[in-house]
Amino acid sequence: MNNVELWRELGQQFRVDSIRTAAAAKSGHPTSGMSAADLMAVLVAKYLRYDFDRPDDPRNDKLVFSKGHASTLLYAIFRAVGAIDDEELLTYRQHGSRLEGHPTPVIPWVDVATGSLGQGLPIGVGMALGAKRLERGPTRVWVLHGDSEMAEGSVWEAFEHAAHYELDNLTAVLDVNRLGQRGETMVGWKTDVYVKRAEAFGWHAIEIDGHDVEAIDRAYAEALETSGRPTVVVARTLKGKGVAAVENKPGFHGKALDDPEAAIAELGGKRDLQIDVAKPSGDPPAQPTGAKPVQLPTWQIGEEVATRLAYGEALTAMGAADGWVVALDGEVSNSTYAEIFAKAHPERYFEMFIAEQQLVAAAVGLQTRGWKPFASTFAAFFSRAYDFIRMAAISQANLRLSGSHAGVSIGEDGPSQMALEDIAALRAVHGSTVLHPCDANQTARLVQAMAAREGISYLRTLRPATPVLYGPDEDFPIGGSKVPRSSDDDEVAIVGAGITVHEALKAADALADEGISARVIDLYSIKPLDAETLRDAAEVTGGRIVTVEDHWAEGGLGEAVLAAFAEAEERPRVKVLAVTGMPHSGKPAELLAAAGIDADHIAQAARELVSAGVRA
Amino acid sequence: MNNVELWRELGQQFRVDSIRTAAAAKSGHPTSGMSAADLMAVLVAKYLRYDFDRPDDPRNDKLVFSKGHASTLLYAIFRAVGAIDDEELLTYRQHGSRLEGHPTPVIPWVDVATGSLGQGLPIGVGMALGAKRLERGPTRVWVLHGDSEMAEGSVWEAFEHAAHYELDNLTAVLDVNRLGQRGETMVGWKTDVYVKRAEAFGWHAIEIDGHDVEAIDRAYAEALETSGRPTVVVARTLKGKGVAAVENKPGFHGKALDDPEAAIAELGGKRDLQIDVAKPSGDPPAQPTGAKPVQLPTWQIGEEVATRLAYGEALTAMGAADGWVVALDGEVSNSTYAEIFAKAHPERYFEMFIAEQQLVAAAVGLQTRGWKPFASTFAAFFSRAYDFIRMAAISQANLRLSGSHAGVSIGEDGPSQMALEDIAALRAVHGSTVLHPCDANQTARLVQAMAAREGISYLRTLRPATPVLYGPDEDFPIGGSKVPRSSDDDEVAIVGAGITVHEALKAADALADEGISARVIDLYSIKPLDAETLRDAAEVTGGRIVTVEDHWAEGGLGEAVLAAFAEAEERPRVKVLAVTGMPHSGKPAELLAAAGIDADHIAQAARELVSAGVRA
Repeated sequence: MNNVELWRELGQQFRVDSIRTAAAAKSGHPTSGMSAADLMAVLVAKYLRYDFDRPDDPRNDKLVFSKGHASTLLYAIFRAVGAIDDEELLTYRQHGSRLEGHPTPVIPWVDVATGSLGQGLPIGVGMALGAKRLERGPTRVWVLHGDSEMAEGSVWEAFEHAAHYELDNLTAVLDVNRLGQRGETMVGWKTDVYVKRAEAFGWHAIEIDGHDVEAIDRAYAEALETSGRPTVVVARTLKGKGVAAVENKPGFHGKALDDPEAAIAELGGKRDLQIDVAKPSGDPPAQPTGAKPVQLPTWQIGEEVATRLAYGEALTAMGAADGWVVALDGEVSNSTYAEIFAKAHPERYFEMFIAEQQLVAAAVGLQTRGWKPFASTFAAFFSRAYDFIRMAAISQANLRLSGSHAGVSIGEDGPSQMALEDIAALRAVHGSTVLHPCDANQTARLVQAMAAREGISYLRTLRPATPVLYGPDEDFPIGGSKVPRSSDDDEVAIVGAGITVHEALKAADALADEGISARVIDLYSIKPLDAETLRDAAEVTGGRIVTVEDHWAEGGLGEAVLAAFAEAEERPRVKVLAVTGMPHSGKPAELLAAAGIDADHIAQAARELVSAGVRA
Repeated sequence: MNNVELWRELGQQFRVDSIRTAAAAKSGHPTSGMSAADLMAVLVAKYLRYDFDRPDDPRNDKLVFSKGHASTLLYAIFRAVGAIDDEELLTYRQHGSRLEGHPTPVIPWVDVATGSLGQGLPIGVGMALGAKRLERGPTRVWVLHGDSEMAEGSVWEAFEHAAHYELDNLTAVLDVNRLGQRGETMVGWKTDVYVKRAEAFGWHAIEIDGHDVEAIDRAYAEALETSGRPTVVVARTLKGKGVAAVENKPGFHGKALDDPEAAIAELGGKRDLQIDVAKPSGDPPAQPTGAKPVQLPTWQIGEEVATRLAYGEALTAMGAADGWVVALDGEVSNSTYAEIFAKAHPERYFEMFIAEQQLVAAAVGLQTRGWKPFASTFAAFFSRAYDFIRMAAISQANLRLSGSHAGVSIGEDGPSQMALEDIAALRAVHGSTVLHPCDANQTARLVQAMAAREGISYLRTLRPATPVLYGPDEDFPIGGSKVPRSSDDDEVAIVGAGITVHEALKAADALADEGISARVIDLYSIKPLDAETLRDAAEVTGGRIVTVEDHWAEGGLGEAVLAAFAEAEERPRVKVLAVTGMPHSGKPAELLAAAGIDADHIAQAARELVSAGVRA
């Protein structure tokens, strides 16, 4: 068999296997795999450089199925390259099988989860950025892309950034099968429209018939030869190609075929071609030097420092100690203070401009090779990338996010710039860590802890300067808390984090003047949280707790505290103070008062609890 | 003064007023207003059709400041047109002033809040769609757009949809001042790049010098004459134009000028031009006929119906009864069943394709004219538009969202398609309503209630068919609950919603066989919730509650229940059952079991509570 015949046969095998797997599962998207079968056949047989025995080899190419619903095709590839056998292939979508409905990194040859459309290319940008600018290795990133998902704005963020960073090691394979889930796309088969758009965004674009294997071959060769810009292969294809009952017909998305036996026969029957995918060659790329001792910045107690500034300085120190640490920011680095890192370590800083989806996606892409990305923007604007953060958890990504300008304490800029839902949103990410420091030394230590942390960790920082409460030698373990004010006579405990710790201390002073002893707990680690310290406080105070947060009540610090006591023997009475009413512009102190979370409101809540009942 | 002189003078007045307001506030973004001053001068003096005494006139044009940080310019316009006086202008950013740091609808002439960049144009698409396809009135939508925010993918969703829907009543005014917050944009002053991109997306594009008022005049005239497609005026401008100390210089974003007096003198001093903005003319557009009696679909108890199907049918009935009801969907209408509405009321259905940000933004735009949009997609994919939902709350939008395929009960498609954080995310939206029905009749009534509801309401529906529990005549008020199983001897209460109500009933059956009487509470209204029914249950059972949800524990139903008891005299012991561990593909029953939220796990949790303590 010559190459051309092999590619054609392999494409047919991928189609047959797509139909077989979906038939076994009685669900799946076989027609979406069938349109891209020839595109993938030529890729794996000739162009892909990948050692399936060593998926962590940093010289490997990356293959991302942005159209994750075409998983039958991906798994058909895995069978053809010998990574899985036929028996496993037919476990598709069964509980316990690693061959899920949409690919996830449960599979060793899958770097990131896909299935939320429009994410594969921005993540691929991160991978290609890492390969080109950090690893400087031979890795080429191939992204199989659907045409329906071209409607996602995140795709155009990726197009712009890939061209801006001249990522000629990135190739998008656009499978223009015309048909989405419920009908035709806006563009249909007008492939010249995609070409024009891609070119306007600075890409090289090649228009082909996606079932002509020789044209596919030429296109990939041209992509490899193109320097200074990424390439998109715009391939006109037929959904369900090769099976008359479904080919190019609407109504067959996301369904196993009605008559798989007939369809397989029409395609020429089952095949068992095995492909030796070419392994990468050459020396492995140089890796950053290992960790050196960290020289964290320190501040003196009583200094006034914004925690966002401490973030920038601590991150810069981490960057000096650990060559794997990289930083990205969404065009606000002079507000988040990521700019300090950018100046110190320019080769490991990536400006992502005002494109928060690409910001997070690039970080997800970078961490697939062991880089430790810290991505920063205003805390409010991570809401723009919430789907990417959600998916990053499914991708088992180790991701560090730093959101500045949390809450009403930002002042005059008004509610659009105030994160008031970020604690809720980030707590509800699987395996996440949510940190909210109140002072600079604490911030620095938490940044250090984040660098070593697995999963998705989120640091919430403040715009205004706050007094340093803790000395530079104090420890702030994740899952811990601090108790800056306590005695055995405490009648009430006030639990805050960030700006509200400072308000709580003022409230405790006021209460002390009235003869009420109040404990103050700084719950800087909101998830996981220090249940033991909370329980102690409940016991000492006879079950009287005030929580206070610069955030909406729902899903925030107060509810996290309530959850810690849900099943406890003794469950305290908890007054949850949180932002009430939509904030407006104003001075921070005015806004904290208007929101009902300043020292006066805290003291009043504490008084009410103390007067409400006799201590236990 | 002839027109040209007037426009130039007005532009200078806008610059002076931008400087004055920021100087009074000691913050703000005057240089961002100064670049667009001439563009807005010609617009308000000649092209805008708006009755400032009647902001609700449906013939008015719409003016959206997508670059909301240029609020000094917007407020300068309001002074020039006589809407506010000089005294109010100088209250900018003060607490209590309606002139906030970024514009919000606290101001009667502002339709939507901006300040999260890249949202104005997609919202403008919704407004233009309503004006062209529903109102068929004279409204033209003008969007002042920054160049930095062109990096947001949402902008390209808007470009594509505006062209697809041939919105020739939409004009984007692109203020290319080259400088973002911390440096130059990716495109800089290469305005031809924006032209190429816009044209590739189907727009008419006009490249001008944004300080040449005659060129601006010609461009707007050309936009008005352009039919069949939207127009973008790509205007090269100078940030801080007219003041040498800041003009075209980095480092002056978001700051009041150092020497406002000198700057004002350089611009020729304060001016007090007053502009009579032309009022709209012609007959008001026809309005939909008023509400007719609703004929909701009904189902018999015991039928198996998916709540997503009930949504589609109920929405269609609402559409028949109320001409203001419109529907939008993100290319999954055959899954969400919005397709039923689309077939019945095609003129009031808008396909938004796979572009969830544009989906929500279009709904926000439509509701500014009183339309009642219901926007649907998979519940998981509203996470893509979370920033738009957050901002919609600041916009005081009345918005109905319907998310299907919630939780692990979807089965084989896997975690990327499972919403497990949506309750947390939507609860943490100011003033939101979060509903999660378990049967078809309940769903239908809640859809009806949503149509009449203010604020942002969210309906969470299920993929699998579930048995109808309630007769068609039952009421399901928002803020209420149902108690399908109860007695005076109940020893434990199980609180669920959606799929878990059915699991709870099975658990109650199993417990009854063991002699344990369990109350089942269907908390279909998660926000607001029925605290009284929960308190009754706590009292009867001696404080033993199991909550169970197909969602992560954080911010979900369990925490909502805990919050309801936070300050109560008697606080029950609550076992919170929620999804633990990342789900995979599998059958719904397998996944409910693996997640620890099926009937067996519920029964076991109830047993543990009952055996743990003597009843109070």
